[in-house]
Amino acid sequence: MNQTIETLLNHRSIRKFKEKAISSEIIHTLVDVAQHTATSNFMQSYSIIGITDQQVKAQIAKIGNQPYIAESAHLFIFVVDQHRNAQIAKENGAEDVLVSGSMDRFMIGYSDALLATQNMIVAAESLGLGTVCLGSILNDAKEMIQLLKLPQYTFPVLGLAIGYPDQEPQLKPRLPMNIVYHENAYQEIGNFSEELAAYNAEVETYYDLRDANKRIDSFSKQITASMDRKPAGRMALLDYLKEQGFLQ
Amino acid sequence: MNQTIETLLNHRSIRKFKEKAISSEIIHTLVDVAQHTATSNFMQSYSIIGITDQQVKAQIAKIGNQPYIAESAHLFIFVVDQHRNAQIAKENGAEDVLVSGSMDRFMIGYSDALLATQNMIVAAESLGLGTVCLGSILNDAKEMIQLLKLPQYTFPVLGLAIGYPDQEPQLKPRLPMNIVYHENAYQEIGNFSEELAAYNAEVETYYDLRDANKRIDSFSKQITASMDRKPAGRMALLDYLKEQGFLQ
Repeated sequence: MNQTIETLLNHRSIRKFKEKAISSEIIHTLVDVAQHTATSNFMQSYSIIGITDQQVKAQIAKIGNQPYIAESAHLFIFVVDQHRNAQIAKENGAEDVLVSGSMDRFMIGYSDALLATQNMIVAAESLGLGTVCLGSILNDAKEMIQLLKLPQYTFPVLGLAIGYPDQEPQLKPRLPMNIVYHENAYQEIGNFSEELAAYNAEVETYYDLRDANKRIDSFSKQITASMDRKPAGRMALLDYLKEQGFLQ
Repeated sequence: MNQTIETLLNHRSIRKFKEKAISSEIIHTLVDVAQHTATSNFMQSYSIIGITDQQVKAQIAKIGNQPYIAESAHLFIFVVDQHRNAQIAKENGAEDVLVSGSMDRFMIGYSDALLATQNMIVAAESLGLGTVCLGSILNDAKEMIQLLKLPQYTFPVLGLAIGYPDQEPQLKPRLPMNIVYHENAYQEIGNFSEELAAYNAEVETYYDLRDANKRIDSFSKQITASMDRKPAGRMALLDYLKEQGFLQ
């Protein structure tokens, strides 16, 4: 076990930050690390948008319904970017750039953006910074697209709020390894209530700092409840993707 | 600059591995690290399939058309897994689990799987291992699905071949930061031929170890050529996703 792995195994999301700015040197390093991530076919099909304008941050906090977004020292939005590559190809005389909107290229850009996000998370945490991933920016992808002026063949993926931690959350217990890790082929689990009994009990001992007065539901209960979670904005993602030129 | 960041900035994909096995202790640590990655809504909507059967590995190497896949010490396939959560919910009396096939839940699982992949890459490299991401498993997603017996609401995302490096590739130059990093909103670049002139020249000095006798094309040329790359298998991804229950 080395220092890097120790940091990775100790990951917690941080949702309360100190009022301390991150130096521009560190921001530069974080973006540099993100850019050095593996990228599909060397196409670098993503962009990163750093939000420094407090008003824009506040609007994103509203979309995500998470006030701590506005309180982070720095906010990054990672986006699929097939627009840039389409533009480069057009300048170079490509007749047809429609492939940029294919499911394949969308998935490639999505993959590039997410690998880069995680690399930035690791770099930030190695510097003592705290981070929280914001899937919530997709609660209203249409508004995010307008707010960030995202052109055709781009799409928001994930937000990442970073700052100096002002809380010490408990480590959140993960599923037993045999449930997540399969060998050679997908293994069906016959009986989850039995397989997850100990894990469910463990999850119920977790105190969420977002509501420190009560413990959280078991994993199985949370998952079951999630089946009723169908907010209109998220259910419209397919339409918004098409509006951006994807899945054609 | 610390050790972790130094490792991240020195990332290269490794495509030639020593004939040296990875200990089961290290495999355990790598999966453990992957499981400690941030996960959307705590849903852990992904699975990891470790390929130890040499025949299965060989078949994946054929799908990816990359012989070095078969020569890696260990091969991981990361998959979107909304099947497990649907099963858990069914066992707990959920009447409707159709949300598991929504674009939203697909993207959540895809995101979970990719963040976990990058965390595993970082852990592996911190231990002196080399890695290469295999987007090529999607050259024939249908065959991958059959080979790994992937049920409804699951989908292959990315392969990760790991082993002890037997090559020292050059660091591959990345796009200038101002091309990838925007502030507060997406910035259109007016003139790529000018903006990318120096970068294109730099890329042309890169020797690809896959064909060590010649340099590679400029970035702009590679991107332009990629617009003609529409292999049938990859263009069918949308259909395969629907067959797995997604995008309904």
